[in-house]
Amino acid sequence: MIIVAGTIRVPEDRIEELLPVARATLAATRREAGCLTYSYAFDVEDRGLVRIYEEWESREHLAAHGKQPHMGPWREMLTRIGAKDRNLKRYEAGEGESL
Amino acid sequence: MIIVAGTIRVPEDRIEELLPVARATLAATRREAGCLTYSYAFDVEDRGLVRIYEEWESREHLAAHGKQPHMGPWREMLTRIGAKDRNLKRYEAGEGESL
Repeated sequence: MIIVAGTIRVPEDRIEELLPVARATLAATRREAGCLTYSYAFDVEDRGLVRIYEEWESREHLAAHGKQPHMGPWREMLTRIGAKDRNLKRYEAGEGESL
Repeated sequence: MIIVAGTIRVPEDRIEELLPVARATLAATRREAGCLTYSYAFDVEDRGLVRIYEEWESREHLAAHGKQPHMGPWREMLTRIGAKDRNLKRYEAGEGESL
């Protein structure tokens, strides 16, 4: 399995603008082949720090995700509102065990 | 490396009560040996869904974390406010690659 995890910083006063596109991107991505988990969340101490967490069946599914047309509006909105410090990593992971 | 990722549901009207303990737990855990990342975040669409994401150097470090005294107040507060649907998984992960 592939895990993608990391953060991006957004200006707190532009978050309301981002939300409709965020919702659309979440919904469309969760319908993609190979998508197991796809989420955005606001850090509890720092709402402008958006935490991204994704699980994909394979690297190929993740690569296909990057080319989906619905990712365009998301990337454009991030640029428009001045998002920065994108810090995302991809990990090869084994099957998870419940804790 | 070990990744821990998942969610827990908390009543939205009790979040303010949870925050001081959350901050203390985050700060104390980030000082633990082997802790690379430790975070709590509110899902962008569903603030009562707390997303947890952790990275640890090893299973041993993660096991030691579970026994730290500062985890007691966090667990007690989660019980007190009626947190439920805890869903956490542990993954063995390779070294990450930046995306």
